Amino acid sequence: MKKHNFYAGPSILSQFTVENTAKAILDFNGSGLSIMEISHRSKEFIAVNQETIGLFKELLDIPTGYSVLLLHGGASLQFAMVPLNFLNNKAAYLDTGSWASKAIKEAKLIGEVDIVASSKDKNYSYIPQGWKVPSDADYLHITTNNTIFGTEIKTDLDVPVPLVADMSSDIFSRPLDVSKYGLIYGGAQKNLAPAGVAFVIIKNDLMDKVQKTVPTMLNYKVHAENESMFNTPPCVAIYAALQTLKWYKQKGGLKVIHKENLRKADLLYSEIDRNKIFKSTIPNPDDRSIMNVCFVMEDKYKDQEDAFNSFVSSKGVVGLKGHRSVGGFRASIYNALPYESVEVLVETMQEFEKKY
Amino acid sequence: MKKHNFYAGPSILSQFTVENTAKAILDFNGSGLSIMEISHRSKEFIAVNQETIGLFKELLDIPTGYSVLLLHGGASLQFAMVPLNFLNNKAAYLDTGSWASKAIKEAKLIGEVDIVASSKDKNYSYIPQGWKVPSDADYLHITTNNTIFGTEIKTDLDVPVPLVADMSSDIFSRPLDVSKYGLIYGGAQKNLAPAGVAFVIIKNDLMDKVQKTVPTMLNYKVHAENESMFNTPPCVAIYAALQTLKWYKQKGGLKVIHKENLRKADLLYSEIDRNKIFKSTIPNPDDRSIMNVCFVMEDKYKDQEDAFNSFVSSKGVVGLKGHRSVGGFRASIYNALPYESVEVLVETMQEFEKKY
Repeated sequence: MKKHNFYAGPSILSQFTVENTAKAILDFNGSGLSIMEISHRSKEFIAVNQETIGLFKELLDIPTGYSVLLLHGGASLQFAMVPLNFLNNKAAYLDTGSWASKAIKEAKLIGEVDIVASSKDKNYSYIPQGWKVPSDADYLHITTNNTIFGTEIKTDLDVPVPLVADMSSDIFSRPLDVSKYGLIYGGAQKNLAPAGVAFVIIKNDLMDKVQKTVPTMLNYKVHAENESMFNTPPCVAIYAALQTLKWYKQKGGLKVIHKENLRKADLLYSEIDRNKIFKSTIPNPDDRSIMNVCFVMEDKYKDQEDAFNSFVSSKGVVGLKGHRSVGGFRASIYNALPYESVEVLVETMQEFEKKY
Repeated sequence: MKKHNFYAGPSILSQFTVENTAKAILDFNGSGLSIMEISHRSKEFIAVNQETIGLFKELLDIPTGYSVLLLHGGASLQFAMVPLNFLNNKAAYLDTGSWASKAIKEAKLIGEVDIVASSKDKNYSYIPQGWKVPSDADYLHITTNNTIFGTEIKTDLDVPVPLVADMSSDIFSRPLDVSKYGLIYGGAQKNLAPAGVAFVIIKNDLMDKVQKTVPTMLNYKVHAENESMFNTPPCVAIYAALQTLKWYKQKGGLKVIHKENLRKADLLYSEIDRNKIFKSTIPNPDDRSIMNVCFVMEDKYKDQEDAFNSFVSSKGVVGLKGHRSVGGFRASIYNALPYESVEVLVETMQEFEKKY
């Protein structure tokens, strides 16, 4: 039976990515060697690295004066790297969920943190509005998409200090105005590649502002100067990322992908709003993520959660269980998830409604 | 033509590892999903993680009271993590090559470093003997195998302070007495897996000695308490590592593998010593690495380097070029390299000798 993969991450990748990666693991470019077995200093792998960075720049229309880094450690290491490199006076953070809170926790280990706003009061079910960034902050940190709670900042903000954004779960979901950002980072395991590589898009002049001694592996400038080859990179994950980026290009780029994502999100949110058994956990439609759709059962149907979980499993749906901090269900509908899988989920919700 | 892969790292892995990893990328355990696409919190992946850690313990006969961690960042991040966690008073380091020097450089960013001995005077062509460890050092750091220079510490040292060893390029090459070590770490990309995962074997009571504030991702105790799942682990690299460990177990364990490694090293060093065109860069046989065999041409044949490189290429040999700091040739003969590949190299050296 065909599986419909709604995992929050690691999550669905394109068949193009899966098949080409498997092929390169058996035999990379007809070399007789596996992509796992070749030197990262070989001209073959250097070409993979450069093509990946080139497609990042092309697809996201990254202006000159920015570097793209492919690093170890996931977004969680970025939580520490950002303040280690840039927190001198104080840093501003917008608290919109668990991942934002983790980033705040790391920054507090390093220096003063000003939380400009938080939606913790309502279990992170909205994006705070009307907050101000202190003009003496070294940077403002935001988490654009909140994987666990299902909210998303869907525009590129204008702020008076360098804007640092964790885009782990919505990078490549829409065109971006990268010029609004000082630094964008994320783990790869949603819209890009298997877990094991993090990306950083960084404005070069930011790197010259570092005042402290930073461990070499945590120093952005070192990685930029070494074109992300300061140490052995996670070659397989980078190769898989390259396949995903090629697939995005073949599809027509981020405008096309964004349109598909909106269509998938509309279909699912419309059903959640219509269906009598379910409700969205995010009241304001403007705040609803187009990547992670969180929903719960109306109170009087709460005892049917297990029944619904079994029912969707029987249709080949996997990864729909909500995070324990929200409960209910979470449908992660990343770029690679076909429209058809959302249709299957929606039909299953309709069938379930008829049964009760 | 069959390739004989002498790359220093990323380097040859067993066919068992290559084929099973490719298979799991297409379909993991018949789940209909790729190993790249499943949640690290799924029971299927938790089983992979636990089996990998279990085989580490079994194959290396790790005593109770130690934890095995599978982390991001490669050995280079360990260069910083070790002093960040454990350097309070001063740390002792043995300087036996480029990697040891990089570890020293990181420790110096954090605190006082006492270099107990160095072989830098002779381009790291020997392992220093007769040095002493200050009894007030927090730990002694050694690099057991020096991938670039081809020397190796082949026994488990007795020292009066916690012994920290970078075993990136000789882990699993021989049985170890882990009880002699406080911490063993390494990147995976030699005897284990593709690049992208680092292993740490750590004595639990060491973790309780941490006195400083350490970024969460760099805190061993956090990773130990979370069974290496504090953040999303590099799942594909860990799956590949598991395949390699299963293969080691099938072969009969580390005693068998050590015997094979000695046989391969003997064959190659004997030829280097016998052949009139080549010479070892490591005068003392006791110091010669059984993983990375460095050799150069005798002075009067130096202009034949390119010719030899072309000649070995024509036999399917790849990755033989020596590191720029030594020159000449380096045959990395890791666990997965078949005896037959060493035979091909030796025959090629003999043929080349006859031609000149």
